Amino acid sequence: MAKDLVIGIDVGGQTAKCGVVDARGNIISQTVISSVNADTPEEFIAVLAEALGRIIREADAKGRIRGIGVGIPNGNFYTGEVESAVNLVWAKGGRIPFAKLLSARMDGIPVSLTNDANAAAMGEMTYGAARGMKNFIMITLGTGVGSGIVIDGQVVYGHDGFAGELGHTCAVRHNGRKCNCGKYGCLETYASATGVARTAREWLEMSDEPSSLRSLDDIKSKDVYEAAKEGDALSLKIFRYTGRILGEKFADFIEFSAPEAIVLFGGLARAREFLEAPIREAMDENVIPLWRGKVDLVFSSLKESDAAILGASALAWEL
Amino acid sequence: MAKDLVIGIDVGGQTAKCGVVDARGNIISQTVISSVNADTPEEFIAVLAEALGRIIREADAKGRIRGIGVGIPNGNFYTGEVESAVNLVWAKGGRIPFAKLLSARMDGIPVSLTNDANAAAMGEMTYGAARGMKNFIMITLGTGVGSGIVIDGQVVYGHDGFAGELGHTCAVRHNGRKCNCGKYGCLETYASATGVARTAREWLEMSDEPSSLRSLDDIKSKDVYEAAKEGDALSLKIFRYTGRILGEKFADFIEFSAPEAIVLFGGLARAREFLEAPIREAMDENVIPLWRGKVDLVFSSLKESDAAILGASALAWEL
Repeated sequence: MAKDLVIGIDVGGQTAKCGVVDARGNIISQTVISSVNADTPEEFIAVLAEALGRIIREADAKGRIRGIGVGIPNGNFYTGEVESAVNLVWAKGGRIPFAKLLSARMDGIPVSLTNDANAAAMGEMTYGAARGMKNFIMITLGTGVGSGIVIDGQVVYGHDGFAGELGHTCAVRHNGRKCNCGKYGCLETYASATGVARTAREWLEMSDEPSSLRSLDDIKSKDVYEAAKEGDALSLKIFRYTGRILGEKFADFIEFSAPEAIVLFGGLARAREFLEAPIREAMDENVIPLWRGKVDLVFSSLKESDAAILGASALAWEL
Repeated sequence: MAKDLVIGIDVGGQTAKCGVVDARGNIISQTVISSVNADTPEEFIAVLAEALGRIIREADAKGRIRGIGVGIPNGNFYTGEVESAVNLVWAKGGRIPFAKLLSARMDGIPVSLTNDANAAAMGEMTYGAARGMKNFIMITLGTGVGSGIVIDGQVVYGHDGFAGELGHTCAVRHNGRKCNCGKYGCLETYASATGVARTAREWLEMSDEPSSLRSLDDIKSKDVYEAAKEGDALSLKIFRYTGRILGEKFADFIEFSAPEAIVLFGGLARAREFLEAPIREAMDENVIPLWRGKVDLVFSSLKESDAAILGASALAWEL
């Protein structure tokens, strides 16, 4: 039987989304399982394999699965291992031969894995906004800031498999915010969903400027977005500040790899109406004249619920 | 006859160095011509071709030249053109089909070109400190700061052929020094030979700290180096400052492409005794834990006079 389908799995801190995908990027069957209901890798993989069996049956895809692609935090493309993934309860401490374990459970179907941002880049290149592009940088604006770098049509993995940690490049050199990674001033402490909420809380404390945000107990980036839509001046300034920081750093990234475009994805990227102008402005101000106005800023058009599965599935076509 | 030799040409603002090179990196014959004694590209290329004819005869290499590699400011690998090279008097304004013109003058021997820092990276990979490395970043510390990025054994040219302008990434975000590129705060305004001299002049003006540099009319980076060797405290501080700025930016570069090493070359890199410790220190402080202490800092061991020719010649082996 023709092996004309693949499986994409996106493993996050709370859930794992799985889907059977065809060559056009249609998700034929899918499911979501919890990723916190297991204590060991073996336990998690057993539950996962069971779920995959179910969606394979649903898609009538037995014998037709060419490969399985997995997007997973700290996934190493070279080794197929997950290394020190602190956000996965069953993966704490150490290296887990995830690809090997899963493949064994799935009758030897080959498994390829990488981190979530690299998977997103593969997804955009295969099915999304970056179709036909050979040089672009994918930036995922979620809880953190992730990145996947594509050069000459290949995701950059670097010497050790972990290239593309642009969320941890330095955005604010002095007195920068403390990051989960232990450093200070990392881009993701400012330009992620949590960064936006942090900016809001800081600014509310530092000034007396009136803002509808003051009535809230616990501010999330979504609240800042809603307030900005209502014309709240402070919230609008927060997005402008966030966008400019992104644009400043994008200029540095462009000077590195001269991409055709920067592709944005993730929850915070939905605030495009407030982010796009300041990003473009700061990007053009901070890049050398050669690239001014020449690098596209593209917002992903993949449906967020599908994108994670599609991104991971794109890996499997290369198996 | 076996085409077992190549020619390497390094075109700078003042001179062009040319050599016939064998596969082991021996320069069999070489010459240096002026690069300012021509008004048009055609004129310069005529003089250059004449010089190449001479070193080919000297090396008894007629019929044995496989290709010609050229390192030249603003050289575009993809097109073989030199674009808006303001430092070449005969190249001002516009795109010059340098590779095509030179090949035509040289009886059709194929010509490949790229900018000087990319050529240096090729040289290190083929004959130098980066032999066997597939992922490294070459940083040239000269009048400016140049860079050549190698990923998976390939020099990164990017979408348009101009990738790797790391000297123009931002080192100082606010009140940074004005750069020749028009921007402010670029790495090369601090961490090049001219940057070091600029730091010296600034600091002498800003403080009353005694320093042997005060007796000099016009301070060059070489003077700062000599003074540091004599134990001049201000000069030592200048190198420490310069090294730390480099290390801070190297951390960002590592987060981009996860290289095995950063390779330093150029006049200022000779101040290794003063730069190495602060670079390593700032690099490790600013990189995420994953790479702390894991990325090598390598100083080129190629003789500077040979390196430019060898680097350019390395391009020609790929023709």
